[in-house]
Amino acid sequence: LTYSYLNQIRTAIDLLASLPLIGPKTATKLAFWIIEAPKSKVDKLLDTIRELKDSLEPCRQCFSLTVRGRQPCDICQDRSRQRSICVVESAMDVFHIESSGTYNGYYHVLQGLISPLEGIGPGELRIEELLQRLQKGNYDEVILALPPTVDGDMTSMYIAERIRERQLELTVTRLGFGLPVGSTIDYADSLTLAKALENRKPI
Amino acid sequence: LTYSYLNQIRTAIDLLASLPLIGPKTATKLAFWIIEAPKSKVDKLLDTIRELKDSLEPCRQCFSLTVRGRQPCDICQDRSRQRSICVVESAMDVFHIESSGTYNGYYHVLQGLISPLEGIGPGELRIEELLQRLQKGNYDEVILALPPTVDGDMTSMYIAERIRERQLELTVTRLGFGLPVGSTIDYADSLTLAKALENRKPI
Repeated sequence: LTYSYLNQIRTAIDLLASLPLIGPKTATKLAFWIIEAPKSKVDKLLDTIRELKDSLEPCRQCFSLTVRGRQPCDICQDRSRQRSICVVESAMDVFHIESSGTYNGYYHVLQGLISPLEGIGPGELRIEELLQRLQKGNYDEVILALPPTVDGDMTSMYIAERIRERQLELTVTRLGFGLPVGSTIDYADSLTLAKALENRKPI
Repeated sequence: LTYSYLNQIRTAIDLLASLPLIGPKTATKLAFWIIEAPKSKVDKLLDTIRELKDSLEPCRQCFSLTVRGRQPCDICQDRSRQRSICVVESAMDVFHIESSGTYNGYYHVLQGLISPLEGIGPGELRIEELLQRLQKGNYDEVILALPPTVDGDMTSMYIAERIRERQLELTVTRLGFGLPVGSTIDYADSLTLAKALENRKPI
């Protein structure tokens, strides 16, 4: 592009397009929204991003998020929850499960999954910290809520094995697999269909 | 949500989801990217948004964008361009056409389209400013590059009529309509197909 200000817009679009789930079309729309929206709205966006970045940090017990300086997090401190630990890949999963209102126990965020392809071994995840929490004996159940993928399956197997080795008195479960509610049979892939048949229930 | 920090994340997601082309899924991914990305990357994003907002303003001649304080814009000041004005809806259109490298004349941004449904009349657009530019007699052609929609058609007609009234010695043209290059016949809607037939050419 011939003019410096057009190149500035192009550079901004390229940066926006590098964010997760943002393609070039959305990045362009966003850039021109930033240019043309009232200054107060753009300031509000800037403040929201800055506050989100500055006010949270990982919980040192469950590795989900907490208000900066508040350790452990509100969920870890909540004595009214049931004595189970839900093991998830990321803090975003905790947010999803809490938003759904379907679970009332504690969490442990692995901060990733075992992945030979990406060169991520168990030592890089928060598995040792999980085992230490379990060893203290405050929990009745571990729910492995990891995705039904190669990496998720491998990580679940690995954790289940480590728990068995330590002979802890704990129920270890995984999330049930099957058809998503509201979906149709013809859209289900064959693995999901196989799991759904395997997990069939009398009505 | 029970905890204030989860509500803060929820509020941030809602704000991000109010941006153009951003749905709730993308907004959630973005929020957690902001929380988990290195601080330097988030600072770069904040700086990019702030600079984009602060460094540009509308050109007072063509109503496209210019570096703040540089009036008129680089394109308006470029004496080497051909003596035509391309009339577009928004500054984003100027960016697209300049990026395509297919046009080498001047621009005029209407900042919208005539739209009875949205209550936007000709007086709210930069049509009078366009006519004044044309009246000075520096141009040979006006290219109406407005979208082939009801509002775009109406706005094109209105502008063509005002130019005719003033008896200016100018060619007034519209962009050609037809099949997008690389598209297939079976995906073309019937109006596009009708236009494509009407605009057929000997080979």
